[in-house]
Amino acid sequence: MCPDTVDRPALTPAQQVRMECRAGTFRRITRNVAPGYVQCALVVLPKAQALDFMVFCQRNQKPCPVLEVVEAGQWEPKRLAPGADLRTDLPLYSVYRHGERVEDVADIRPLWRDDFVSFFIGSNTSCDLALRRAGVQTGKNRWVLRTRVETDPSGPFRGPLVVTMRWLTPAELIIATQLTSRFPFNHGAPIHVGDPAALGCDLEHPMTGTPVPPVPPGLVPTFWACSVTPQTVAVAARTELMITSAPSYGFISDIESDKICIP
Amino acid sequence: MCPDTVDRPALTPAQQVRMECRAGTFRRITRNVAPGYVQCALVVLPKAQALDFMVFCQRNQKPCPVLEVVEAGQWEPKRLAPGADLRTDLPLYSVYRHGERVEDVADIRPLWRDDFVSFFIGSNTSCDLALRRAGVQTGKNRWVLRTRVETDPSGPFRGPLVVTMRWLTPAELIIATQLTSRFPFNHGAPIHVGDPAALGCDLEHPMTGTPVPPVPPGLVPTFWACSVTPQTVAVAARTELMITSAPSYGFISDIESDKICIP
Repeated sequence: MCPDTVDRPALTPAQQVRMECRAGTFRRITRNVAPGYVQCALVVLPKAQALDFMVFCQRNQKPCPVLEVVEAGQWEPKRLAPGADLRTDLPLYSVYRHGERVEDVADIRPLWRDDFVSFFIGSNTSCDLALRRAGVQTGKNRWVLRTRVETDPSGPFRGPLVVTMRWLTPAELIIATQLTSRFPFNHGAPIHVGDPAALGCDLEHPMTGTPVPPVPPGLVPTFWACSVTPQTVAVAARTELMITSAPSYGFISDIESDKICIP
Repeated sequence: MCPDTVDRPALTPAQQVRMECRAGTFRRITRNVAPGYVQCALVVLPKAQALDFMVFCQRNQKPCPVLEVVEAGQWEPKRLAPGADLRTDLPLYSVYRHGERVEDVADIRPLWRDDFVSFFIGSNTSCDLALRRAGVQTGKNRWVLRTRVETDPSGPFRGPLVVTMRWLTPAELIIATQLTSRFPFNHGAPIHVGDPAALGCDLEHPMTGTPVPPVPPGLVPTFWACSVTPQTVAVAARTELMITSAPSYGFISDIESDKICIP
């Protein structure tokens, strides 16, 4: 049999994106990419800071639901995506030194150290397909915003909560609350509905998305805790070194979102 | 004003039990004590093992939902019970050395070290009042059983899953599944329904409760992951030192169970 005709198992959409990231041919944000798969933010830290950071995540479970921890020096998230390499399989990483975002890079192998521990944190984006299937639009009117709400600190890790704001109709708001409540490990239910000022949201400088215009009549701002929170924590904590996924550039796992609703 | 007539704030049932434990006058199991408050298992470890253990809990969230971590050398669970002392406020502790349960003690202050990190793990008992209010009996037909299901290991921590088995009517089973699904941080939904052999349950030697008789007609064995799991892990891991709450002797927190259903 000619090798060209050998049946190869087709790559899933999640595997396809990871392979393109690894090859350097995928450099876009990961929203609406591989819908239906759990997406994660990534945080990489020296082992000396890992326990403090993991306790930070426990104290702030709504923004920081930990879906996998990869041990010091290893780079394969065996539970979320066997065979993946967390050093190359995201489209973009941000490198923070002493609280400064010093560079964004597409490959962290040159920075790799044997004492790096890696955390995968569930992302709101994971629920987008389920929301759309339930009739809630997800394609527009969505921002990632800094707030003035402080997280519960652990060791050096502290800083403001980041939220995802969506503008929804009242009917969508109810359905979205019911549906996201079923995903406690992907931020769960909304944390606030209504006036962004109650959270001290920075509407002028969203972390992702365009600047926020006035809310149109008939739509209600609805807020979820967001896995971009570690990026503001990296700044406030001023730790020697912290590498994260760049905001909106997530890791796409092999886990189908529907399968980790309420476990 | 005479000191005897000064109004003192009444202690809550949870505070009352903890004060009696501290005074050495409460030495009973904590089931049905202070119903409606979140109960926890406790695990105390040297800091050198703390990250491995916390990763173990993340990999086994159903049996080991971490509700608070108290930093090295500290003994006040400020979030679960401000003012409490985890060294004295449980009725009984088990001390494991190299995998041997060497003693059960009522006060761990003599064993205390500055490098001890403490983990509070949500217990099934927390849901008993909510189950009773919903019409599910909780007073009998309940056992804590070792299984042959292996947990997902982390570092030295490994060992068989422990489950809580309840015998329920079909109507109770449905209500209990709905209700416990709302408590993802207290073990959540059942992990199995029906034949105990599917989990390899040790029916001859329950960890708590009387030996298991044959199931009466009309009742269905229903199984939840159990926070006694760390006790079997302490044995299998053979770590130098691990202190746990003795099985069935939990820590009663100030948190009302209803308030941490789906967050």
